[in-house]
Amino acid sequence: PETKLPKVGTTIFTVMSQLAAEHGAVNLGQGFPDFEVPGRLVEALDRAMRAGLNQYAPAHGLPALREAIAAKTERCYGHRPDADREVTVTSGASEAIFDAIHAVVRPGDEVIVLDPCYDCYEPAIDLAGGVAVHVPLDPRTFAPHWGVVSAAITPKTRMLMVNTPHNPSGAMLGTGDIDRLAALLRGTDIVLLSDEVYEHIVFDGARHESILRHAELRERAFVVSSFGKTYHCTGWKVGYCVAPPALTAEFRKVHQYNTFCTFTPAQAAFAEMIREDPAHYEQLGAFYEAKRDRFRAQLEGTRLKPLPVPGGYFQLVDYSAVSDLDDTAFCRWLTTEKGVAAIPLSPFYESPPAGQRLARLCFAKNEATLDEAISRLGTL
Amino acid sequence: PETKLPKVGTTIFTVMSQLAAEHGAVNLGQGFPDFEVPGRLVEALDRAMRAGLNQYAPAHGLPALREAIAAKTERCYGHRPDADREVTVTSGASEAIFDAIHAVVRPGDEVIVLDPCYDCYEPAIDLAGGVAVHVPLDPRTFAPHWGVVSAAITPKTRMLMVNTPHNPSGAMLGTGDIDRLAALLRGTDIVLLSDEVYEHIVFDGARHESILRHAELRERAFVVSSFGKTYHCTGWKVGYCVAPPALTAEFRKVHQYNTFCTFTPAQAAFAEMIREDPAHYEQLGAFYEAKRDRFRAQLEGTRLKPLPVPGGYFQLVDYSAVSDLDDTAFCRWLTTEKGVAAIPLSPFYESPPAGQRLARLCFAKNEATLDEAISRLGTL
Ligand SMILES: CSCCC(=O)C(=O)O
Ligand SMILES: CSCCC(=O)C(=O)O
Repeated sequence: PETKLPKVGTTIFTVMSQLAAEHGAVNLGQGFPDFEVPGRLVEALDRAMRAGLNQYAPAHGLPALREAIAAKTERCYGHRPDADREVTVTSGASEAIFDAIHAVVRPGDEVIVLDPCYDCYEPAIDLAGGVAVHVPLDPRTFAPHWGVVSAAITPKTRMLMVNTPHNPSGAMLGTGDIDRLAALLRGTDIVLLSDEVYEHIVFDGARHESILRHAELRERAFVVSSFGKTYHCTGWKVGYCVAPPALTAEFRKVHQYNTFCTFTPAQAAFAEMIREDPAHYEQLGAFYEAKRDRFRAQLEGTRLKPLPVPGGYFQLVDYSAVSDLDDTAFCRWLTTEKGVAAIPLSPFYESPPAGQRLARLCFAKNEATLDEAISRLGTL
Repeated sequence: PETKLPKVGTTIFTVMSQLAAEHGAVNLGQGFPDFEVPGRLVEALDRAMRAGLNQYAPAHGLPALREAIAAKTERCYGHRPDADREVTVTSGASEAIFDAIHAVVRPGDEVIVLDPCYDCYEPAIDLAGGVAVHVPLDPRTFAPHWGVVSAAITPKTRMLMVNTPHNPSGAMLGTGDIDRLAALLRGTDIVLLSDEVYEHIVFDGARHESILRHAELRERAFVVSSFGKTYHCTGWKVGYCVAPPALTAEFRKVHQYNTFCTFTPAQAAFAEMIREDPAHYEQLGAFYEAKRDRFRAQLEGTRLKPLPVPGGYFQLVDYSAVSDLDDTAFCRWLTTEKGVAAIPLSPFYESPPAGQRLARLCFAKNEATLDEAISRLGTL
């Protein structure tokens, strides 16, 4: 029989990381920091493991971690979800997104995604038998055109996915967007899936408009985040989903028969870390803002034109002054010939805008790494 | 809209563990050891974490771990899978089973499962849009009746699932079973999914008939295992799937968009552990055989009648001399009134045999734990 996912090849992140390794390129492709996890988190994990917390955690997550997530949510967004009935710990935000889709999307259901979007959304929708309906974001600002989103809604629309701060562009939903979104969904039974993994990496004094702040929207939403970006440990794979009880019940049915539960010592470590340093989040924006500003200043000395970065840890650059190659060919060339790995945007689209010449560079790196990348990019 | 998984409640393992905690019962229900992870594994994980292996692993698993799994497979079963194209690391065997089903089962496809079977199989089949076809194992020996299995095959059969050593019974497939199974599948395109998580816990000199030993069967099989049972760390959630390249390619499409990758430091730790102590497996059977024998001898002093345990770490007991309650009611009563948590068998069946009076006790416990359980069971 034919493959169930004919459109799926190896994810672009794997492809570019492999190519980077083969060519000794500075890897600004796949998004991960090259600096270290906070020491106290390492100590906490070590202690949990040595204290014998090595057997199955409760499927929904260690109670201490669910409580910590509830407390953090209240601290950040003024709303405290019920740790027992509204918070579920998962093996990364990826699993949470996969589970949320499988919890509610049935064969033939439509799911609206806003392009460009992260490459795991559509395969999960396909596997659930759903149909991804792609609505383009503004090609310049990456803001949603709510009128176009509205026009894409049909009686079959089961879910709408948003992502703020947005990967790959860093664009953030504003209060106006939230109001439009709420108006759009009012009176429908469309479920919202909000991917907020970059929630604490926001710049220039902007406020992250988490769906969890919004009483009306959060009643119909799965809000997904993770600790990978917030604590510089993308390989620890602890994520979570906050959703009202009825959605959480369906979510947990999938989760308990997918991964069942998640690495116990890391759950204990995050619970302790959040409890003992609840303000960790607050400096993260400033930490990355300094990196962003330094990197953008350095890019001024190259022929790559940086786009605005309101949040997240990715810098989009327009390379049209350098090359006429399409973005995939350009990123391959940049990796193999110039020694800097980047991610093309076209894999984030159903149909990429014609002639778009953008590449994504990750600036979650040490200064030395970024300096080396810049010195190579300076020769373009 | 209605729930997608109307039959699914909270898994029996969670239910009984919660009940055990509430009532201070000795928990012989959910299967996990109450003794410790090998110290060198803890040290290896700690070292990996402090060496900075905290970012995303390659989606298919750390190359060192995939190589270690290939070498271990060769050592144990005389066949070396290709670490690059045939081995994929997952977040526990649960995820591997879920991914394998989603990789090949389409709406309307039938999947034959042999009852009693682990409770995650059917919900995963349902989510994929498949139909679980339940074929009973022999109610006394828990051996498959291959003639009955054969009669259940239809043109819609896409997959057949086996589990050896078997949970909950401990029964093991023998070479005769393997021959019958091979004959049954020959000439069909039915995919085999073999759950072998208790592969190294086998007793009385028996040999585990891994599907990986069998050249013909492994060409059509996903073989799933994990490290949780082998290294006493059920909460570390590192599993894997070995399958021929074409099946692995489909499997990875699901895996990369489900969890993407698994906790990196544990992968590094298992790679080191397997490399440096390749014979760890060899003493595991004897270790658990001593526990089994001691526990069974102690059960002689109770009114529970132990069934044979060829493998795994569960003891089935016939409680008909004690109670006429159905198994779920009996296990609840045993937990709340007698202070010993056990798992009923009926959740492992589509239709449990009428009048079956069996409960499952986990003997992966310290002697003190088992002694306390026995002293409570002695009052039945
Ligand atoms: C899971 S690998 C991709 C990491 C990431 O989020 C990104 O690079 O966009
Ligand atoms: C994932 S919780 C159940 C553990 C187990 O394998 C069992 O008890 O059978």
